[in-house]
Amino acid sequence: MRETTTSLSSIGPRGAGIREVARLSGVSIATVSRVFNDAASVSPETRQRVLERAEALGYAPSSLGRNLVRGRSELLGLIVPNVSFPLYGEMIGGIEAVLGEQGMSILLASSHDDAGSELTATQHLLRHAVDGGIVINSLLESSPPALRAVKWVQISPEHAGLPFRVELDNAEGGRLAALELLRVGRRQLAYLGAPGRESQERERGFAETLGQAGLTYRRAEGDYSERSGTWAADTLLEGGGTPDAIFVAGDLMAAGVLRALHRRGLQVPGDVAVVGFDDAVIASLLYPRLTSVRQPARTMGAAAAELSLRLIAGLNAESVTFAPELVRRESTGPP
Amino acid sequence: MRETTTSLSSIGPRGAGIREVARLSGVSIATVSRVFNDAASVSPETRQRVLERAEALGYAPSSLGRNLVRGRSELLGLIVPNVSFPLYGEMIGGIEAVLGEQGMSILLASSHDDAGSELTATQHLLRHAVDGGIVINSLLESSPPALRAVKWVQISPEHAGLPFRVELDNAEGGRLAALELLRVGRRQLAYLGAPGRESQERERGFAETLGQAGLTYRRAEGDYSERSGTWAADTLLEGGGTPDAIFVAGDLMAAGVLRALHRRGLQVPGDVAVVGFDDAVIASLLYPRLTSVRQPARTMGAAAAELSLRLIAGLNAESVTFAPELVRRESTGPP
Repeated sequence: MRETTTSLSSIGPRGAGIREVARLSGVSIATVSRVFNDAASVSPETRQRVLERAEALGYAPSSLGRNLVRGRSELLGLIVPNVSFPLYGEMIGGIEAVLGEQGMSILLASSHDDAGSELTATQHLLRHAVDGGIVINSLLESSPPALRAVKWVQISPEHAGLPFRVELDNAEGGRLAALELLRVGRRQLAYLGAPGRESQERERGFAETLGQAGLTYRRAEGDYSERSGTWAADTLLEGGGTPDAIFVAGDLMAAGVLRALHRRGLQVPGDVAVVGFDDAVIASLLYPRLTSVRQPARTMGAAAAELSLRLIAGLNAESVTFAPELVRRESTGPP
Repeated sequence: MRETTTSLSSIGPRGAGIREVARLSGVSIATVSRVFNDAASVSPETRQRVLERAEALGYAPSSLGRNLVRGRSELLGLIVPNVSFPLYGEMIGGIEAVLGEQGMSILLASSHDDAGSELTATQHLLRHAVDGGIVINSLLESSPPALRAVKWVQISPEHAGLPFRVELDNAEGGRLAALELLRVGRRQLAYLGAPGRESQERERGFAETLGQAGLTYRRAEGDYSERSGTWAADTLLEGGGTPDAIFVAGDLMAAGVLRALHRRGLQVPGDVAVVGFDDAVIASLLYPRLTSVRQPARTMGAAAAELSLRLIAGLNAESVTFAPELVRRESTGPP
């Protein structure tokens, strides 16, 4: 076993080889290998000397060799619809923080919001023998057998093929938005949604809470983009009977709603109160600052990483559902 | 050579082994190995049959074994100060798009805006035998020898130890901002900067252009955060003699400036025109929409990936400097 480790570890990256490090340190190749494999059998002095020589020579042991022996790559695959979407950036930050502490690295791929690309990206990650995987907002209806080589954790909506989930209680988010708008005395409400299960759940919680108060609401649908927020709001405002409050399924779309209201000279929250969803960075940059239902993206990312580490270690693991919180700002302030 | 490839490829991830795929496909293990190593010597029919059996069995060949033989990991290391900063998200998107096409994967690590963490992250990536690396806004003053095992490309400011750069002509950005503010008739100008070389360069271009017009300017400094934009703007506005234009070194900080102006009842651009820097996603979400000097983050990321691929292939490669562009919006509109 020790011999195998040694010979595989000698295939380092482009720097010096293990032989040179051993020669200059005055020890055997096997000893250099043990230093880099954290074996306790090396004296502190020898360890120090080898590490200094290795540093001077630009030698770094190849984890390829080590991991072939150990059967672990110390890589976790991560598939994200779109790296530049701010909420996903926060999730990745949470994942990275947990994995970094465990000495694991993230192998990143993008699905570009497309099921075909997601499948390709997944196969790609598997070729690098990732120990586990996390997928944000998977679009696959079910997992092909090849993907089941490792255990996947998904963040967000339900995916038939992936049993482990970290998700938000979206219906509770809709309930919080409705309660806030009722609290500030609004009665002519509207919902601006988008395609997909998350928006459906947000609307369900919103509708149920309004129903309990004996109220109905009007609705329109966008696609989470700012632009779609503007035109969907225009549709609502032209439909006769201006709403006095709009609950919007995403903050970026809410930015578009605020723009539509500004253009018509309507005051926020004086004429129309607005509640967004996600509490992304932009929520507090908008004018007025946006009240939003907070999705704890960073914490959810960290939870997915922890769940994934448990699965890799062969421990019991359970899906986690996070409760959203309302973050109250100017857009639902007193009129 | 073929035998070696075969035996190493048999160490797949947790799915079925290469032996089962060979047995069910009615071919030798060597043939299965050739299918996954893209050798041309396999007939299309055999190839198809093997791929189908492999898919059904959940077999994916381990790239660990393949790459030990080829001496390439097909991994590119990427170090980012902070994954959730929107501009970096766009850069990562550009890098990912280019590498994905080449079948290379990104190994992601965060430096958390700290030189010590950056060094640790780099060593971590080297342990996975990355073929090359990209670092965004490196904080290291010089590269320790161990890092030189692969060629690094840096995006943004100069770093003594890393010869290959993709950067923006920041001084030209400052010049564009000054010209825009002069164009709309402003004469009482101010610069809101931040620590670091990028801000220095932006200020240099701004100062030179104003100097040529016989104008001076006042200055204050923040730290690129929104909050710092608000207090730095307050300092400028309380200093006596309200400026009629402020050039701000970053869009997030410009959001804070807009807030300070709104609070004092000053009109933008009527009383004070504002130009930001980066043209991040938020620029067009602010109220009023922010005129900004555009840093083509996605294109710069793609260029860094291409530069890195050339270096890995052993081809000639040169650093690239991008020219910024002014994106004119409401915050410098006619008063």
